[in-house]
Amino acid sequence: MGKIARDQHVPEIAASPAFSLAATVDPVARLDGVEAYADLAAMLEARPDISAVALCTPPQVRFGLARAALLAGRDVLLEKPPGVTVAEVHTLERIAAAKGRVLFTAWHSQFAPGIDAAREWLAGRRVTGAEIVWREDVRWSHPGQDWIFEPGGTGVYDPGINALSILTRIIPSDLRVVSAEHDLPGNRAAPIGARLVMATEDGAPVTMDMEFREQGEALWDMVIRTDRGDLTLSKGGAVVSAAGLDISKTGGALPDEYRRIYERFADLVALRRSDVDAAPLQLTADAFLAARWAMADPFEW
Amino acid sequence: MGKIARDQHVPEIAASPAFSLAATVDPVARLDGVEAYADLAAMLEARPDISAVALCTPPQVRFGLARAALLAGRDVLLEKPPGVTVAEVHTLERIAAAKGRVLFTAWHSQFAPGIDAAREWLAGRRVTGAEIVWREDVRWSHPGQDWIFEPGGTGVYDPGINALSILTRIIPSDLRVVSAEHDLPGNRAAPIGARLVMATEDGAPVTMDMEFREQGEALWDMVIRTDRGDLTLSKGGAVVSAAGLDISKTGGALPDEYRRIYERFADLVALRRSDVDAAPLQLTADAFLAARWAMADPFEW
Repeated sequence: MGKIARDQHVPEIAASPAFSLAATVDPVARLDGVEAYADLAAMLEARPDISAVALCTPPQVRFGLARAALLAGRDVLLEKPPGVTVAEVHTLERIAAAKGRVLFTAWHSQFAPGIDAAREWLAGRRVTGAEIVWREDVRWSHPGQDWIFEPGGTGVYDPGINALSILTRIIPSDLRVVSAEHDLPGNRAAPIGARLVMATEDGAPVTMDMEFREQGEALWDMVIRTDRGDLTLSKGGAVVSAAGLDISKTGGALPDEYRRIYERFADLVALRRSDVDAAPLQLTADAFLAARWAMADPFEW
Repeated sequence: MGKIARDQHVPEIAASPAFSLAATVDPVARLDGVEAYADLAAMLEARPDISAVALCTPPQVRFGLARAALLAGRDVLLEKPPGVTVAEVHTLERIAAAKGRVLFTAWHSQFAPGIDAAREWLAGRRVTGAEIVWREDVRWSHPGQDWIFEPGGTGVYDPGINALSILTRIIPSDLRVVSAEHDLPGNRAAPIGARLVMATEDGAPVTMDMEFREQGEALWDMVIRTDRGDLTLSKGGAVVSAAGLDISKTGGALPDEYRRIYERFADLVALRRSDVDAAPLQLTADAFLAARWAMADPFEW
């Protein structure tokens, strides 16, 4: 029942024709008028009729909760990132398949208004390069959330992985990490700034500038260059423009991301099909594997 | 034509009934009496009759060479690790499948004499814990090889991944990284020591102590505890013992690893089947993703 649960999941579940909020699980927080449990095991035990669970915790505790819910026969929606490690996600995928349950890795930025149009526009084009800028003030976006600088919190990749989830969704090529530079505050365990160089399969450079020490408004922008024009994406996927792109398919407000997530989850539950996408987390793990580290000033809120 | 090519690949290709050494590729080094090329593109162009390539380079240049060989219609054996990143390996797997070529990720420690017997003994047992010690003097094992401390060289995980390749092969459970501590020399980009904590799917702890600053003889040992006795593996998989384990199936000398690799590659080529195992590299990437870093003394050879 943290920030993202209250800001997005609770209102979208309330608005969804497919779901209703049967209960919350949180050691402390609760919602007026909604059945509440302090831990997941108690809820799974008490309410066998609850058939689906949305996990909105920090990633460090996600695996154990997801595994317990799947083994108890529940369908599971995972907030992004779907785990601390890629192997965790593959294991959950295997458990879900073995138990016949639905597992959905919900990358909210993939549901931003312009993403489908961008993907369609890029299909059949050859990407010749891309530049991504993903900069924000962590004191504004994650105030006091120490978990983000803990191991597994991934630091500036926590927002950066949203860009990676867009890229892997819309670019018609595999991506791979070529090199990375990470800035590590002396008193933290995850990077506060990062410059990432990736490549498409045939070597087109895809560069990404991530920063948590940005002053002022957040920048969530990308330019994808192709053999037939450039595509520009700004405000995290809310605004997309390119020559020949039907503008009517783009635009809209960011809150719609979570409405679309619950529509997708409802479809998956009805079809009894999982949708597990580990690619953004894989690129993040690969970036950490290939990174050079530089020490940065200690960071305090 | 570096150390591992000369020490292992050349003699095993010479001994193999399935392969013969048609040519070498190296910007400088060559073998007396063997056709030699300075780069792979020239060889692929000049010798369309060469149907298989064994890539024994440091991992940082592996992807481009493997991709070129596959696109030129050749079967490919990759020395360990199969790439700098996991995504690279998945991309090569996709290319091989699309081109109908064989891709083989050769993890030599998986071909150590006792591995099959250990795997068989563990099948059907429940692992309750494991401790791995993988310590050696890098000045002895990789003298002057600066690439090992470069990004993508993975430092002490370069030998450590041999243990991971054994574990993922013989333990009858998925493994996942829980936490890691890495010692980073101030003048290098990859860890010189690491303590890794993993877990089996149901939470049994698997700990690994990796060290490149070991004095004296290398230690490559593991103990795997189960609900029905312990299995001990020493000398990197050459010696395996456990209650009830048929000793006649174990033992032998380390050089046999590469003989078995070329036997396996011959089988795969005959069957037109790839064998791509990214699990050891996945755990390594996950460890880097979840690691805490501590600064260590600068390292010079």
